[in-house]
Amino acid sequence: MPGLEDFLRKPVRGMRDLAPDDFYPLKRMEELLSALAESFGYRRIETPAVEHFEVLSRKAGREIVNEIYYFRDKAGREVGLRFDMTVPVARVLSYKLEEPKPVRWYYFTKVWRYDEPQHGRYREFYQFGVELVGSESPRADAEVIALMSKALEAAGARSYEIRLNDRVGMDKILETMGIAAREEVLRILDKKGKVPEEELKALLKKAGLEDEKAEKLLELVSEPLPMGESAEFFSKYDERLGGKYAEIIKALEPYDVLDKMKLDLAIVRGLDYYTGTVFEAFVGEYKLAVGGGGRYDNLIELFSGIKTPALGFAIGVERLMEALNIGGSRPPLDYYIYPMTDEAYKVAVKLASMLREKGASVAVDLGELSLKEALEHAAKTAVKFFVIIGKKEIEKGVVKIRDMYRRTETEVELSRILRY
Amino acid sequence: MPGLEDFLRKPVRGMRDLAPDDFYPLKRMEELLSALAESFGYRRIETPAVEHFEVLSRKAGREIVNEIYYFRDKAGREVGLRFDMTVPVARVLSYKLEEPKPVRWYYFTKVWRYDEPQHGRYREFYQFGVELVGSESPRADAEVIALMSKALEAAGARSYEIRLNDRVGMDKILETMGIAAREEVLRILDKKGKVPEEELKALLKKAGLEDEKAEKLLELVSEPLPMGESAEFFSKYDERLGGKYAEIIKALEPYDVLDKMKLDLAIVRGLDYYTGTVFEAFVGEYKLAVGGGGRYDNLIELFSGIKTPALGFAIGVERLMEALNIGGSRPPLDYYIYPMTDEAYKVAVKLASMLREKGASVAVDLGELSLKEALEHAAKTAVKFFVIIGKKEIEKGVVKIRDMYRRTETEVELSRILRY
Repeated sequence: MPGLEDFLRKPVRGMRDLAPDDFYPLKRMEELLSALAESFGYRRIETPAVEHFEVLSRKAGREIVNEIYYFRDKAGREVGLRFDMTVPVARVLSYKLEEPKPVRWYYFTKVWRYDEPQHGRYREFYQFGVELVGSESPRADAEVIALMSKALEAAGARSYEIRLNDRVGMDKILETMGIAAREEVLRILDKKGKVPEEELKALLKKAGLEDEKAEKLLELVSEPLPMGESAEFFSKYDERLGGKYAEIIKALEPYDVLDKMKLDLAIVRGLDYYTGTVFEAFVGEYKLAVGGGGRYDNLIELFSGIKTPALGFAIGVERLMEALNIGGSRPPLDYYIYPMTDEAYKVAVKLASMLREKGASVAVDLGELSLKEALEHAAKTAVKFFVIIGKKEIEKGVVKIRDMYRRTETEVELSRILRY
Repeated sequence: MPGLEDFLRKPVRGMRDLAPDDFYPLKRMEELLSALAESFGYRRIETPAVEHFEVLSRKAGREIVNEIYYFRDKAGREVGLRFDMTVPVARVLSYKLEEPKPVRWYYFTKVWRYDEPQHGRYREFYQFGVELVGSESPRADAEVIALMSKALEAAGARSYEIRLNDRVGMDKILETMGIAAREEVLRILDKKGKVPEEELKALLKKAGLEDEKAEKLLELVSEPLPMGESAEFFSKYDERLGGKYAEIIKALEPYDVLDKMKLDLAIVRGLDYYTGTVFEAFVGEYKLAVGGGGRYDNLIELFSGIKTPALGFAIGVERLMEALNIGGSRPPLDYYIYPMTDEAYKVAVKLASMLREKGASVAVDLGELSLKEALEHAAKTAVKFFVIIGKKEIEKGVVKIRDMYRRTETEVELSRILRY
C-alpha cells in the first residue's frame, strides 16, 4: 500500500506536531508560567477555539482580521478560530457580570493566525497571558508589567527588556507636531527596526509629512529613554499623562523591574483595541518581540455595555522558547519489565501495578520482541531500569535489574524491588 | 453603549466557556488521568487542531465525516478541525517512522464534532486517550482495556462496566447466519438501547432479514455475557478467534479487571477504522458511553504504507465528569493584601514577593476599593487570609491578618508572617 502523499503526512502548513520530545518542554513552560500567574492571584480560564466572527472582528484591527481562520459552520454561522485570548475574555465578561472586579485571569492555550510561516511564527501557537480587568489604577499597569517581567525570568530569560509606549502619549505628540495622518504614521513607525531608516522617512513623506517633520519624528523615536524619564518626557506634551507615568513609575519601584524597562516611541502594537500603555518584551539578542500587551479600556464596554478599564499581556510561547533556546526531551521511563514466560508475564503485570502505585512509570513488554530487541527499544526510548523476569528468576524469587545508564546488572529479591 | 447582542456574548452554540470554577475541575481530571497514563509508560503528544480534510475523512465513516468542522483556508486548502486524536496520531506516525515500536502515546486535548448539542454532548470537548501502536499481541488489548478501567477508577468511578465486542466476531456471526447486509445491520444494532426493541426488529426486516433471522439476531445481542465466556462463545463461530479471546482473557487476569467486563454484541462503534476488538465504557447509571476504543490494524498502513497493528481508547472528559457528577471551584487565594497608604503599598508588594517565593498565591489590592469593598471581594473570590497594612502597622512593624474562614483577626510581626 502506498500510504498518504508526503504533504498529507506532515501537519497543515505553518502548524506543528508535538511528539513527546517536543511536548514536554512546552508542558514545562506551562507549569512554570502557570505557577507564576497563580502566585500573583490570577486564576486560569479557557474558551472555545471557535468564536463568533463578529466578536473576533469588531475591534481587532485590519491586519489581524485578515489573519483570522474564518469559516461558516453547517448552520451558516460566521465563525473563526480565535487569534488571541483578550477578545474571548472580553466576551465572557460581557455576560459573567457578577464576577467581582478587578478580575485576575490567565491562560495558556492555542491561538491561530493565518500569517506567513517563518522562524518563531506559526499558524497555530500557544499563548500564555493574563488579563487584569476592572482597574484603571497605575498600580494595575505596574502589576501586569511586573508579572510579564517575572514570566520571562521564570522561563529562564537572563537578559530581557520591556519597551513601553502610550497610545494617548503618541496622539498628543502627533497633535503637538501638527501631524494628522495618525493611523498611517503609527503603522509606519511600527516598521522601525524591520526596514531601513531611509525607507521609513520616504514612507512618512508619502503619508504627507514635510521633510522636517518626518526627520523630527524619526529622531524622537530613534533612541529609547530609560523608563524613569517617561514621566518628564510625557509631561512636555500633556501634564496629566506625565502625572500618570509618575504614578506608574512609583508603583513599579517595589517590583524591582524599572531597570529592565525603556520608553520606546516606536512601540505601536497592531491591535486596534489598545487605548493607553502598550509594551513589548524582548529577550537577549532575539529580534522579534516575544510578547506584548497594553491597556484596552474600551473593549469590554464595547461587548458588555459597561465601562470597564482593563489591561493584559500575552507571550508567544514557542517564540519565547526559540529565543531562549529551550529544548528538551520526553521524561525517561522508570522501568521496562521483560517477562520471559507466560507465568513471568503475570508476575510482571502484578509487579508493574505495585511500582505504579508507588509513583513509578512502568511498561510491560508485550511478548513480541526478543530480549535483544527489547533492550534496543529501551535504549532508544530512555529507560532507567530494564527488569528481566524468567523461569529461573521466579523460582529464586528474584528479578534481574539492568541499570541502563550505568550499564550494570544486579539480581534483586522480588520483594525488595519495591524499595529500589 | 448597548454592547453585544445576547447570543454573541455566549459561546458559539454547543461550546463552553471555562471560567475558573469550571476550569479547575477539568484541570484536576487532566492531572489524574495524565499521571495514570504516565505510570503505564505512555508519553504525551499534541497535534494541530486543524487537519488536512483528506486525512480526516479517509477512514472516518459516513456519520463522523458529516460531523467534521470543514473549511478552506485562505490558500484554498481543504481542512477541518480534528474529530478525534487517533487519526492525527496515525498521520504523525506515517512520517515519524523511526519511533521505536510499540509506541505508547496518550493525549488530553480538545476535539470538535458538529453534532446536535445535548447533555454530555458538546461540539467542542476534551478527550483523554491512549494509542498503543505496533503490537498485535492480545497482551496489547489487555493493557489498553486495563488502562481504560484504571482511568475510570482514577477519575473516581466506583461502579463501571466495559462492554466489548469484536468486528471479526460479528462478521463471522452474520456470515454463519447467512446475513449479507453487514454495514446496515451493524448500524441498526448500534441503536440498541436507544430505540425500542420492536423498532429494531422492524429496521432489520426492512434491511432484508427474514422474521426468524431478525429475532434470532436480536436474541443473540439481547444479554451481555461475562467476559470469561467470550472465548467459548466466539469459538462456536471461529476457532482462531476463540483462541485469541482465550489469550486476551489470560492477559487481562493479572490486571484484576475481568469482573468489570462483558461481551456485548450490541457494541458496534461508529468509526470505520476499527478492525478487531471494540469496547465502550459505562459508568454507574449514566446512559451514554463515557468512552470507547478498539483495534485499528489497517489505519496506520493506510497512511504510512507499512503494516502496523494498533489499538487505543478515548474518554469524553466532560461526559465522564457529568456521569460522575464531578464539579468544583477555583482554588482559594492564600493572601489578599490591603495597603492603606502609598508607603504601605510598597511594603505590600515586597511582602507579596516574599510570600510568592515561598509558594503562596497573593494578590495586592490596587487602591481603588474601600476596605469594606475589598473584604467583600475577598469573600466572594475565596481568600484564606486578608492582610491589612496601614500607617500604624508599619510604625509597629506588624500586619493585621484576618482569617477569612474562622473570622478571626490577629496582629502578626511583619518578619513572622513569612513563617505563617
